[in-house]
Amino acid sequence: MDTTALITKFKTTRNATEEICKPLEIEDYSVQPIVDVSPPKWHLAHSTWFFEQFVLKAFKKGYTVFNDDFAYLFNSYYNNAGERVLRPNRGLMTRPTVKEVYAYRKFVTQNVIDLLTENSSEVLLELLEIGINHEQQHQELLAYDIKYILGHQPTFPKYDAHFVLSEAQEKQEFISIEEGVYEIGHKRNDFCFDNELGVHKVYIHPFEISNQLITNKAYLEFIEAGGYQDFNLWHAEGWDFINNNNIKAPLYWHFTKGKWHYYNCNGLEAIKLNEPVMHISYYEAFAFAEWKGMRLPTEFEWEVASSKFNWGALWEWTASAYQPYPNFTKADGALGEYNGKFMIGLQVLRGASIATAKNHSRHTYRNFFHPSLQWMFSGIRLVK
Amino acid sequence: MDTTALITKFKTTRNATEEICKPLEIEDYSVQPIVDVSPPKWHLAHSTWFFEQFVLKAFKKGYTVFNDDFAYLFNSYYNNAGERVLRPNRGLMTRPTVKEVYAYRKFVTQNVIDLLTENSSEVLLELLEIGINHEQQHQELLAYDIKYILGHQPTFPKYDAHFVLSEAQEKQEFISIEEGVYEIGHKRNDFCFDNELGVHKVYIHPFEISNQLITNKAYLEFIEAGGYQDFNLWHAEGWDFINNNNIKAPLYWHFTKGKWHYYNCNGLEAIKLNEPVMHISYYEAFAFAEWKGMRLPTEFEWEVASSKFNWGALWEWTASAYQPYPNFTKADGALGEYNGKFMIGLQVLRGASIATAKNHSRHTYRNFFHPSLQWMFSGIRLVK
Amino acid sequence: MDTTALITKFKTTRNATEEICKPLEIEDYSVQPIVDVSPPKWHLAHSTWFFEQFVLKAFKKGYTVFNDDFAYLFNSYYNNAGERVLRPNRGLMTRPTVKEVYAYRKFVTQNVIDLLTENSSEVLLELLEIGINHEQQHQELLAYDIKYILGHQPTFPKYDAHFVLSEAQEKQEFISIEEGVYEIGHKRNDFCFDNELGVHKVYIHPFEISNQLITNKAYLEFIEAGGYQDFNLWHAEGWDFINNNNIKAPLYWHFTKGKWHYYNCNGLEAIKLNEPVMHISYYEAFAFAEWKGMRLPTEFEWEVASSKFNWGALWEWTASAYQPYPNFTKADGALGEYNGKFMIGLQVLRGASIATAKNHSRHTYRNFFHPSLQWMFSGIRLVK
Amino acid sequence: MDTTALITKFKTTRNATEEICKPLEIEDYSVQPIVDVSPPKWHLAHSTWFFEQFVLKAFKKGYTVFNDDFAYLFNSYYNNAGERVLRPNRGLMTRPTVKEVYAYRKFVTQNVIDLLTENSSEVLLELLEIGINHEQQHQELLAYDIKYILGHQPTFPKYDAHFVLSEAQEKQEFISIEEGVYEIGHKRNDFCFDNELGVHKVYIHPFEISNQLITNKAYLEFIEAGGYQDFNLWHAEGWDFINNNNIKAPLYWHFTKGKWHYYNCNGLEAIKLNEPVMHISYYEAFAFAEWKGMRLPTEFEWEVASSKFNWGALWEWTASAYQPYPNFTKADGALGEYNGKFMIGLQVLRGASIATAKNHSRHTYRNFFHPSLQWMFSGIRLVK
Repeated sequence: MDTTALITKFKTTRNATEEICKPLEIEDYSVQPIVDVSPPKWHLAHSTWFFEQFVLKAFKKGYTVFNDDFAYLFNSYYNNAGERVLRPNRGLMTRPTVKEVYAYRKFVTQNVIDLLTENSSEVLLELLEIGINHEQQHQELLAYDIKYILGHQPTFPKYDAHFVLSEAQEKQEFISIEEGVYEIGHKRNDFCFDNELGVHKVYIHPFEISNQLITNKAYLEFIEAGGYQDFNLWHAEGWDFINNNNIKAPLYWHFTKGKWHYYNCNGLEAIKLNEPVMHISYYEAFAFAEWKGMRLPTEFEWEVASSKFNWGALWEWTASAYQPYPNFTKADGALGEYNGKFMIGLQVLRGASIATAKNHSRHTYRNFFHPSLQWMFSGIRLVK
Repeated sequence: MDTTALITKFKTTRNATEEICKPLEIEDYSVQPIVDVSPPKWHLAHSTWFFEQFVLKAFKKGYTVFNDDFAYLFNSYYNNAGERVLRPNRGLMTRPTVKEVYAYRKFVTQNVIDLLTENSSEVLLELLEIGINHEQQHQELLAYDIKYILGHQPTFPKYDAHFVLSEAQEKQEFISIEEGVYEIGHKRNDFCFDNELGVHKVYIHPFEISNQLITNKAYLEFIEAGGYQDFNLWHAEGWDFINNNNIKAPLYWHFTKGKWHYYNCNGLEAIKLNEPVMHISYYEAFAFAEWKGMRLPTEFEWEVASSKFNWGALWEWTASAYQPYPNFTKADGALGEYNGKFMIGLQVLRGASIATAKNHSRHTYRNFFHPSLQWMFSGIRLVK
Repeated sequence: MDTTALITKFKTTRNATEEICKPLEIEDYSVQPIVDVSPPKWHLAHSTWFFEQFVLKAFKKGYTVFNDDFAYLFNSYYNNAGERVLRPNRGLMTRPTVKEVYAYRKFVTQNVIDLLTENSSEVLLELLEIGINHEQQHQELLAYDIKYILGHQPTFPKYDAHFVLSEAQEKQEFISIEEGVYEIGHKRNDFCFDNELGVHKVYIHPFEISNQLITNKAYLEFIEAGGYQDFNLWHAEGWDFINNNNIKAPLYWHFTKGKWHYYNCNGLEAIKLNEPVMHISYYEAFAFAEWKGMRLPTEFEWEVASSKFNWGALWEWTASAYQPYPNFTKADGALGEYNGKFMIGLQVLRGASIATAKNHSRHTYRNFFHPSLQWMFSGIRLVK
Repeated sequence: MDTTALITKFKTTRNATEEICKPLEIEDYSVQPIVDVSPPKWHLAHSTWFFEQFVLKAFKKGYTVFNDDFAYLFNSYYNNAGERVLRPNRGLMTRPTVKEVYAYRKFVTQNVIDLLTENSSEVLLELLEIGINHEQQHQELLAYDIKYILGHQPTFPKYDAHFVLSEAQEKQEFISIEEGVYEIGHKRNDFCFDNELGVHKVYIHPFEISNQLITNKAYLEFIEAGGYQDFNLWHAEGWDFINNNNIKAPLYWHFTKGKWHYYNCNGLEAIKLNEPVMHISYYEAFAFAEWKGMRLPTEFEWEVASSKFNWGALWEWTASAYQPYPNFTKADGALGEYNGKFMIGLQVLRGASIATAKNHSRHTYRNFFHPSLQWMFSGIRLVK
């Protein structure tokens, strides 16, 4: 990508992040209702700090940081980049104010643009691309976190209709994939993350995969058939989790006045039956598949079959644990902490969601979350 | 008190509460860093709800509540007044906004004033006086909570010089009190809380009490003499508490650059040695007294001796557990929950502090907190 | 007491402890089901270590400890006596075996007897008396702990009929006590603990106290009237406690086959209605009194009135927090840790129980426990 | 296997279990120091209950259970087999006594033998074989748990020299494996567990694997090089775990008198440098490999290469998460709970250990544990 195009992409990305926050009140920016949810203000500042830390401090001569405290306040998990506020304490930071954080954004954005007009070395452009992709990932997290914050207000305020799903239209069919050795992983021309790299071969056994995501209608049948009460459908860990946390439905579902409602970004509404079911943990996706007598695809099956169905509405849980590809190597220093250190205990999701930034998705993309989490925009596709 | 005077007092009190919040940014209003600290917005709304619930709904014909959700959102602990947001979740409420809460305050304030021009029944005036005193108590809590919120920002922002102590001037002396039967408790002409009522007799043995609070200088000697390392000085419960919570000094004290600093409301500064020591738990007050070979006064000793020394800078820990006076009775309904249900496990503090509302203090006033807490404006006076 | 009498008392006490453990299987000796319950083996060894530590090591020339590890294993809470196994880990010690612990007991018992034939200094005899009283206290704890261990086996094995209450016979009456100044505390001729010392004056207001403990019948009425569901009867702390711990009846009560049973030491049986209610927390005793429109006595009221009613079946909760008497002083060194360091957060019980050693009770005795505990032999006497 | 051979194997297995417990004192049988460690008595009874539940109750006409309570007491995790004592409470069961449990074993053993003389249907023999293999697994857990119990006594008592490793003798070499499609999984002639079934193809990229396990010497170098302090070597989850749990060495290692010792089953001794390192978590194995610039094998690589090196001293951590093989299916009912429900969050270990029953190991065997655990007999083999 040439410099001009990259500057445009950079500006677009910076704007898009702020656009997501437009509907918020200042009060909504600082709260951290659970440890997984970061305050919107934090995302705004952290994605900015990333550029300051890895681009400006490294490449811009004489650059003076906007505020000495911000590295401490807005580093997320990069041990190599120094001390930081612990994750559970992000919601305690009332200062800097939202206004100051927007000023910080403006300052860093302008400095990066200035830098790019002076310097367009390949290594810089590469880091910028990582920074843009990083900010796009935080755009998606912002959507999750804002939905969580507003969806847990007793008053269920509206947020933004962009983050509401369409109802399904196609008929469900199963697509057959033949047995054989397939190539998996990103062939590097354009950007990808290090965890997608290393094209390698995987032997795939024959399978059939649905062209559709599971709908609320189908999931409601599972609930009504007692799926949350039948231990035989669940992993032992999942069974303990739903019982200890009293989970009986997807996140944001409320049974009131005799039927199921959910908080979507328009407020509290009756469930739309033909929408894909959303806000599902891996435990739930697995139990649902068991109940159907089917299973989830592995991430390799998903990648191989992905050109044969539509995807992109919801991240799709796979049966694969998040592990390194053969020949995976970490970058040196802080950026080496981006992916590799999370390769234990998490499950891969494939695809993209309505909250994913444009041009940020590809069929080799490996997303990953803990199997217990429901707050991301996750759904279910089955294999038989 | 006549109606006009009461209206004036009511207005003054409502204004004073808002004055305390003047230095805040909007972001500071909603956060709850620990369960004991409520968001300033919550105090503003809760003290307003109290008037709406116990005054307007009970006495104003045709009164329509400002917002149906607010009873649920801003009830504190009155089981008799219905369901409520659980205390640890107060910091999750980003809505209503600060602006809406101020509108709520204005609405209720005006309605109360209107009501008082129509109705001045004694029972109404009494409830109003309770409401005013209740709001004054929350003014003090606001000072504690705001200090906690700002004092736990990594940047230690300034707050308000009103809440900074003066340095001591008088010389320490010990005042002797004679043995005998004394009367304890409030003789009701003016307002008091139910827990002060029931004048009754207590037998007091002879004692001598200091005319001064313990200073930072004296407390520093205790720290430097290893007071926090000598288990013989502490209650077993206190010893466990300071070790489990890694407490080695009063709250807000930081040892940096070779000496002790503290966050007072002017930012982070070197300790002023002649100020009374502040932000002390009961465990610490007790251990300090042990180290000095003295003890804390009982609340009865304090009350009997209080006319002989100056008090009012800091709440003073007493050796007395918070228990009912003989013939204590609870009011019926929600207001009966005001005091009585806390009469277990807490320790009495006497006096007042620089954060106490004017006209809110008297020598029979019984304040009470858990012995582990440091965040209130507490200090030490010794008896020998 | 002369030496011969003291030797006899010593031997009797040592035997009595072992008698309490007679019905146990070896497996019952080592378990610690909750942190408050110590393994019987631990009690046997700890009460022995107490004599070794404070008597033999201090007074017996050339005494070699039975086993070097035992001081570490069987010290309870005496910081001055060195490092120790933490309380929650007492149940992990499978070694030394029960057999070895009995050998330890025999060894120390014999050494103490030998010592007493050589040395009968007053300070030694005093320490011995403390040791005997200490062991008697552990006899009572043994009864509580063994009942807890066996009462929490799914099979409810029998233990020992000694620890079963008699049913009440007398008629309930209320005894009037006159207002005035009374003397409280132990007048030292015979043995008492340091917390009873310091005879002092207390002003008592007139009250009437029941000659009877509350029965299971009366308590059952409280349960059936919804006492455990009415927050107005409870302390805030108590209400949280019973709800968080799902407490709906005294400890050992089970509602099975349509009615209430309890584990008493004969196995699981239907509740005997005329027995005093037992295994009650302070929270419950308080709530019951509230429901009756009465209250619990203070420990001073109890002491003053105690000569006018029978007591000794159950420890009786008082309305008094456990606090030092005027002029209370701690002994130097480890024995100073016996009582003083617990004088915060606990509630006083007066009287004695069917598990109290003979000659170990007196009307000035101050027992103390956390208000949440149910496992001791506690009951209720009311005042109006 | 014919009936006679199976009876012999059954008897041998039952005896072997009891042999493992021979060195124990009765006190050692009932304790549960951490939730992962079950009391030896529980293993003895549970492996017996398994035969009673799945063999005798299903096949023996007129069979009366030994004790009605035992199904409740000794079921482990089979929801389909009814209610059970919760895992953390296994250590509270002092009853039945050890003696009764041995009587239970004898009773069930005899009944099974009697049954086999009457009935040798294939389904019965299959269940018996599962029961035998199940008991062999518990033999290994017994070794782990007994070592844990004794190794956590302050006195480090001896246990049994059977469970001590030999020192390494061969020279380390790396074995090359060629790229290609390999068959993985058990070809069913003899017994295997359901998780090994479904022979299927896996594409393997070329790799080299060590013929030796990592020694204590090599691991000590890692410790001394600061491996436990360098976050870059660890998974984020592992880094948090070792810091939260203060882990700085393998389990049972103690740094005393200036050098490293460990509890092996002969007591506390100086580390033997040429032994394979043992009691390593997955987090540690991974960090060690990172430090060496190598990696752990996948379970497929391990299986393919296993005929080219010696294995069987320690279970070897693999880089593979425990997931179902293609076409994995669960059995119906309780035995379907054996493996499948654990296929989330755990890591595969391959091989066997010195505590594995004879004839219980094969190169397709899939063992699995949580990556944080150290108490099993685990070690490290590297790939480059």
